[in-house]
Amino acid sequence: MDIRAGLQSGDKRACARLISMVENEDEQAIGILKELYGLTGKARVIGITGPPGAGKSTVTDKLAKLLRQQGKKVGIVAVDPTSPFTGGAILGDRVRMTDLSTDPGVFIRSMGTRGALGGLSKAAHGAVKVLDIFGMDYIFIETVGVGQSEVDIVRLADTVIMVAVPGLGDDIQAIKAGIMEIGDVFAVNKSDRDGAERTATELEMMLDFNIRSQYRPPVINIIAKDNKDVDKLLEAVEKHYVYLVNSGELSQRKKNSIKNEIIDIFKYAMVKAIEEKSQSSSFIEQLISDTVDKRLDPYTAAAKLVEEFRSR
Amino acid sequence: MDIRAGLQSGDKRACARLISMVENEDEQAIGILKELYGLTGKARVIGITGPPGAGKSTVTDKLAKLLRQQGKKVGIVAVDPTSPFTGGAILGDRVRMTDLSTDPGVFIRSMGTRGALGGLSKAAHGAVKVLDIFGMDYIFIETVGVGQSEVDIVRLADTVIMVAVPGLGDDIQAIKAGIMEIGDVFAVNKSDRDGAERTATELEMMLDFNIRSQYRPPVINIIAKDNKDVDKLLEAVEKHYVYLVNSGELSQRKKNSIKNEIIDIFKYAMVKAIEEKSQSSSFIEQLISDTVDKRLDPYTAAAKLVEEFRSR
Repeated sequence: MDIRAGLQSGDKRACARLISMVENEDEQAIGILKELYGLTGKARVIGITGPPGAGKSTVTDKLAKLLRQQGKKVGIVAVDPTSPFTGGAILGDRVRMTDLSTDPGVFIRSMGTRGALGGLSKAAHGAVKVLDIFGMDYIFIETVGVGQSEVDIVRLADTVIMVAVPGLGDDIQAIKAGIMEIGDVFAVNKSDRDGAERTATELEMMLDFNIRSQYRPPVINIIAKDNKDVDKLLEAVEKHYVYLVNSGELSQRKKNSIKNEIIDIFKYAMVKAIEEKSQSSSFIEQLISDTVDKRLDPYTAAAKLVEEFRSR
Repeated sequence: MDIRAGLQSGDKRACARLISMVENEDEQAIGILKELYGLTGKARVIGITGPPGAGKSTVTDKLAKLLRQQGKKVGIVAVDPTSPFTGGAILGDRVRMTDLSTDPGVFIRSMGTRGALGGLSKAAHGAVKVLDIFGMDYIFIETVGVGQSEVDIVRLADTVIMVAVPGLGDDIQAIKAGIMEIGDVFAVNKSDRDGAERTATELEMMLDFNIRSQYRPPVINIIAKDNKDVDKLLEAVEKHYVYLVNSGELSQRKKNSIKNEIIDIFKYAMVKAIEEKSQSSSFIEQLISDTVDKRLDPYTAAAKLVEEFRSR
């Protein structure tokens, strides 16, 4: 398959294949990305996050459909919590968004968390880049909003939609508080449920305590499954984008996102080099067993690794 | 404050101070850890994980109290989802476990997620080591069971208790599936609720499909808040430990945990070196702006960083 030609002619299979290859650190795929890097930066990237059960997929679906009606092409990267052993996406094959996935203007990709060495945020960065090159106008990254790696992922978005939902209890509220600061637009989904008013009020109160700029994130009540007020949510996203552009924050975000990506790739390259070394020599094995036997401590062992890496 | 003397005389303040210093990468603290590393490895480390709202803190509290009745000293490291901006623990000051925290045989520490460069699992590793040196017999690490970093954290435990709860919907079930493979003992909490039977059955079914060794994780129904069958849960934890010792898996786990720790410290040291460099020179800044302006791509920029690091 000629991936370059496929990408240009809008062949979804070429796009899917390139994402997989990028995930697997395939040299040829990285070569293609390097070559086509100049084509990136055109897509609007929107993060969707929130606690489990908030209805993030439904919100994404409805927003995507709305954008399709406006003639926009839409990419969706759904980051699913997965097995640390298989590395595969548990929800990857769930039947979701069936009507969307047959639409030629929509590309959906489920992505599992990778091993500790790979780095999910690096993989997500890669997928977004491929979809950007593929010519998608909007790219959604959907992720469960708990955990450092998830936060890192949504950080690459221009706008982050935080989806809340009434009545999930204190534990959830606390999590919501934890990721509040990365939300640019708040949606209270399932707003016909008991407690929706309270959830919205609580969000507004938290936002009062959390002033970071002249931009105040709006709180929008929606019922995604009935498509109720999803258009208002999209409007709020567009407004946030206008703010980003006018305030100069957009270029700052892009810059941070690129910095994070470079450092991710750098970290991975170094750990990979060390891992490869440990397969061809007994150097790391020896460090580990010396530490297990307390002849070394982990700090000294790590310092020896750094030294070894530099002198290679 | 003489931290070494404080640790030996059981002064909690010395312990708390050392953990903070380790979190902040304080040189002196790392020196103390190196020196006292030979004292580690005596504590039993138990991970507690599960979806938000499952009642993990309550389960931890009750287990801790049970162990206190047996005269054991207990350390608790509660990893809370937090703000990526402040780095502080949102739940750090919540009023939890008040009767436990005044008990001289119990040490409780809340820990926020650190910045992307720091690494929560490195910080948690450090806290466990300090508590181990401090003479705790059991150390609990409590964390929301979603996300790669959380998985990394519980991996340092000898035994992982996965707390499930009835009726949290499909999204939660999927998450449960994602982290099933790291559970050694399953607790269905709030088992007086509707759907508890179904949750337990589902867990048993998932375990049927997920055979990894001759050890079959048990599923225990409990009501933590009423202290119901928490003793059975503790028994199951003890049984798992006997299995670990007899099968030789314990030493394998310890070895993996040490390997992960060494690599964590290694990664951090390298990223830190690069960050420091970027403050004293414009090298990274230049790479970033070249990438922003598409004169470079992120892969080439990262490769230049690696080169720079090696030649330093």
